[in-house]
Amino acid sequence: MQHALPTTFGLKCAVWLSMIERHRVRLSEITPRVLVVQFAGAAGTLASLGSQGLAVQDALAQRLKLGSAPVPWHVARDTLSEAVSLLALITGSLAKIGNDIVLMMQTELGEVFEPFVPGRGASSTMPQKRNPVVSEQMAQAASSVRGDLALILESLARSDHERASGPWTLEWMAIPRAFVATGGALERAIFLLDGLVVDSARMAGNLDLTGGLIVAEAVMMALAPKMGRGPAHDLVYGACRTCLETGARLVDVLKRSPDIRQHVTDSEIEALANPKNYLGSTDAMIDRMIKARRV
Amino acid sequence: MQHALPTTFGLKCAVWLSMIERHRVRLSEITPRVLVVQFAGAAGTLASLGSQGLAVQDALAQRLKLGSAPVPWHVARDTLSEAVSLLALITGSLAKIGNDIVLMMQTELGEVFEPFVPGRGASSTMPQKRNPVVSEQMAQAASSVRGDLALILESLARSDHERASGPWTLEWMAIPRAFVATGGALERAIFLLDGLVVDSARMAGNLDLTGGLIVAEAVMMALAPKMGRGPAHDLVYGACRTCLETGARLVDVLKRSPDIRQHVTDSEIEALANPKNYLGSTDAMIDRMIKARRV
Amino acid sequence: MQHALPTTFGLKCAVWLSMIERHRVRLSEITPRVLVVQFAGAAGTLASLGSQGLAVQDALAQRLKLGSAPVPWHVARDTLSEAVSLLALITGSLAKIGNDIVLMMQTELGEVFEPFVPGRGASSTMPQKRNPVVSEQMAQAASSVRGDLALILESLARSDHERASGPWTLEWMAIPRAFVATGGALERAIFLLDGLVVDSARMAGNLDLTGGLIVAEAVMMALAPKMGRGPAHDLVYGACRTCLETGARLVDVLKRSPDIRQHVTDSEIEALANPKNYLGSTDAMIDRMIKARRV
Amino acid sequence: MQHALPTTFGLKCAVWLSMIERHRVRLSEITPRVLVVQFAGAAGTLASLGSQGLAVQDALAQRLKLGSAPVPWHVARDTLSEAVSLLALITGSLAKIGNDIVLMMQTELGEVFEPFVPGRGASSTMPQKRNPVVSEQMAQAASSVRGDLALILESLARSDHERASGPWTLEWMAIPRAFVATGGALERAIFLLDGLVVDSARMAGNLDLTGGLIVAEAVMMALAPKMGRGPAHDLVYGACRTCLETGARLVDVLKRSPDIRQHVTDSEIEALANPKNYLGSTDAMIDRMIKARRV
Repeated sequence: MQHALPTTFGLKCAVWLSMIERHRVRLSEITPRVLVVQFAGAAGTLASLGSQGLAVQDALAQRLKLGSAPVPWHVARDTLSEAVSLLALITGSLAKIGNDIVLMMQTELGEVFEPFVPGRGASSTMPQKRNPVVSEQMAQAASSVRGDLALILESLARSDHERASGPWTLEWMAIPRAFVATGGALERAIFLLDGLVVDSARMAGNLDLTGGLIVAEAVMMALAPKMGRGPAHDLVYGACRTCLETGARLVDVLKRSPDIRQHVTDSEIEALANPKNYLGSTDAMIDRMIKARRV
Repeated sequence: MQHALPTTFGLKCAVWLSMIERHRVRLSEITPRVLVVQFAGAAGTLASLGSQGLAVQDALAQRLKLGSAPVPWHVARDTLSEAVSLLALITGSLAKIGNDIVLMMQTELGEVFEPFVPGRGASSTMPQKRNPVVSEQMAQAASSVRGDLALILESLARSDHERASGPWTLEWMAIPRAFVATGGALERAIFLLDGLVVDSARMAGNLDLTGGLIVAEAVMMALAPKMGRGPAHDLVYGACRTCLETGARLVDVLKRSPDIRQHVTDSEIEALANPKNYLGSTDAMIDRMIKARRV
Repeated sequence: MQHALPTTFGLKCAVWLSMIERHRVRLSEITPRVLVVQFAGAAGTLASLGSQGLAVQDALAQRLKLGSAPVPWHVARDTLSEAVSLLALITGSLAKIGNDIVLMMQTELGEVFEPFVPGRGASSTMPQKRNPVVSEQMAQAASSVRGDLALILESLARSDHERASGPWTLEWMAIPRAFVATGGALERAIFLLDGLVVDSARMAGNLDLTGGLIVAEAVMMALAPKMGRGPAHDLVYGACRTCLETGARLVDVLKRSPDIRQHVTDSEIEALANPKNYLGSTDAMIDRMIKARRV
Repeated sequence: MQHALPTTFGLKCAVWLSMIERHRVRLSEITPRVLVVQFAGAAGTLASLGSQGLAVQDALAQRLKLGSAPVPWHVARDTLSEAVSLLALITGSLAKIGNDIVLMMQTELGEVFEPFVPGRGASSTMPQKRNPVVSEQMAQAASSVRGDLALILESLARSDHERASGPWTLEWMAIPRAFVATGGALERAIFLLDGLVVDSARMAGNLDLTGGLIVAEAVMMALAPKMGRGPAHDLVYGACRTCLETGARLVDVLKRSPDIRQHVTDSEIEALANPKNYLGSTDAMIDRMIKARRV
């Protein structure tokens, strides 16, 4: 939460997207393990069906469009745990998005806003408030599912013998709860991201809050080939200290430095001090991410 | 932990094995997502490398034999969470195995034992003790990794902006700890299962503890085609009540019942009352599981 | 879960009771901290009440029979966390009791049983089953409340500024859930312990399962003053090994040992080998516990 | 994280203090329950000491300056759980403080700063950064201890019979870890709060970011007695909408409103719009808190 180097809101969104894309792959991978019939009788032997046990099990699976496992999974609950693990990963990602937006919606930042819904997140006696109610719900879902996952994993560990003494009842609470929380968080995320209000002017303004120090590295990198890395570092570092002590803007301090003016012109300094010129591979990364997306 | 129907120790082991086999598949699935280079500079833009950022990143990945992602994963920590989720699934399964063995090693059951190591789990003043020290370690590893997973998932949710304000330091503790615990539990499991001492005579003896009630369902199923399901149920249920009230063995009560003797001979009753004859698809399941195993 | 030394079921119950008694003390200690009014307006300043803020707050507290804190606790949620911590301690204790009973109800132990309720925990095709359904519910409540406590503690940690950005909504789920689970577990515990069926004959029988090895320490302690601790240890240890190898009962091996017969008579050996004679301070502890009880 | 109503940094600190004071009371309450000797032999009966068991136990307790419980606590681990619960409450409170400071140190707020330590939390290429490294450590300690508490509570629930089958080994990891984390977090907190740098000018400046909307409620409350609550609300609400739409300052809009000027003068409006005049019971609460402090 400290200004470091300039980046773009687009790259932030691309990083969000990268998580969602991975979740889609995970979902396709775990589905055949999770959607498997469980039908094996009280002790998992299918004994009451005589010699027809497995044939009946397989036919049932086919009828239900489920897979059929070699052995019962009644006390091998790794697949249920795996399913809820994925829910925890999904809501964890949505929480990261939600937390980012809560921070960006702060009165002091004001860079993005949740879609406006009359009467929600507002107050008639505090008209300046824009409470990030949807983002908060996304953040909280992750905590809730994380707790549910712990219960499911406990059930996995403690599913004794062929029919566990109790822990699986934890799943009766935890599994529906985790699915509801994830479904809700996904619905909230779609609403939020579909209508997100982005204030790019405010973003640009905030970039400038440090009087240009955010581009110190950019200036240093540009000077290094011309005057050597060590001297470039010392010069720019000195200029930054002057800024911090006097409140001057970096671009002005740089322009006043004879050592720097030997190597770069005023307009070059202006260009170096423009955060838009120090975005590196930002656009290329976004392009890559969009191409990597599965349709 | 109540006798239900007969099963075999082999099927129990096959169910254990089914979890391990699934873990092997999971490991191969997540590896390409997890083993990915992270190299993107302070804000994830590769700005200090000018236009060469992604080329350098890709070359580095190749040199390290790692994958290269479209965008940085510095604050998209779903892949780390996924890795630790798998550790939680693995140790959860080992805990299920360990807990089963702790229960079977109880003085009152005495069905299986950890490999004997002189001086371990023993006591000179309590020479009858066979403490399940290895199984307990396996059980405890799962709880420890479950806790680590919660920390990692919290880091995922709270990795704000482009470089998180702290939560990733939780990973410095939790990730190595989770790997060490899982590695240790796997090593323990190999030792335990390689040298597991199985007392099949004691198993057979314990099967008989209920005076044959464990085969009540078997008798009922055999009588049903001959006398109708309802009458068969009532007859066997009545015989069981007699056993519970008088302490008699089921086979003796059955032999004394004229209604039953109408339909089955003494030797048929003996055969029905033998748990070995009511194992259903047990062997077929074990065969399936062994065939399903990836080499 | 390995026979160690003899103890009594009464002492086990006294240890259970010791936890409950401590919970009663805790409840009385936390009550004045938890039952405190929260009334301070949107930012905790009571500004809309002018100079009458604290007077109104105190009067409200009095009307509601709640305490009044010096400063608002809206974002100082340690007291809510403390309340749920106590619920976690209470359900944790009930889970210990429940787990003990699940183990003692195992078919192979059969030492205690839940109160019989027609049709509950039973099966007509598996008439021997006595499922410990109530004990399991007690055990599971602890896991559930433990998860709720984690959510509450997260809310404590993340209650930012004067009105938190979301985490307190976790409490809307977790607090009622934790109270309901605790109330249910307490109700279950009262039902269970009021009607617990204890089979003391079976307990005595199980004590004898190791052929008397459970009293090896008792014999050693009695011989030590007569022949020296070292020789006593070696003699008894040798006798125990003979038992383990041959299946003989300890009392018979002891009687056949000339070294031992030098020091103790047959009837003394019989007395030493009776677990009832090696219960130490068991009764005194129970008495102490009952006296320590607050009425 | 949305401006609501004005408050003071002093009240924020008083709320922080209120938690610490409660922790001190809790510590004194739990100490006699936690500092209790455990000395009872392998099964908790003190049998090897004959009739002298409790006398020896009590003497040992006295020698160690520990309490002596009526019955052993070897498998009644509620007191250990209680101790770690308190650590979780303490670190939870410190995390709240740390999180508040992380937020206030954001580049866009800049209201408080951690004590300056040369070379820490800084970067020569990003000289504007003031990383909140100490506050982050405080925040992370809470997550770590929360995880440890879950392990301890699991040990409480699963401490079977008279000597548990394993879960207490979780405590070997979790208890020292929780104490170290809490001790570290407390040491960090003392360092942080002793040397906290507060920029009150920046605070005042940030208060003004909404162009005065933060005092809308104050104006409304002052007008209500003069013109009725409904009309006062409508007038101020209208003025706020004008501010939001035009970017004008509230005080200027109010001064231009003939309806308002009927009731209050320009200088009264200036006074109402000064956040310092709408702090309610802030100072009285701080005084109360300081008086309530135990020395």
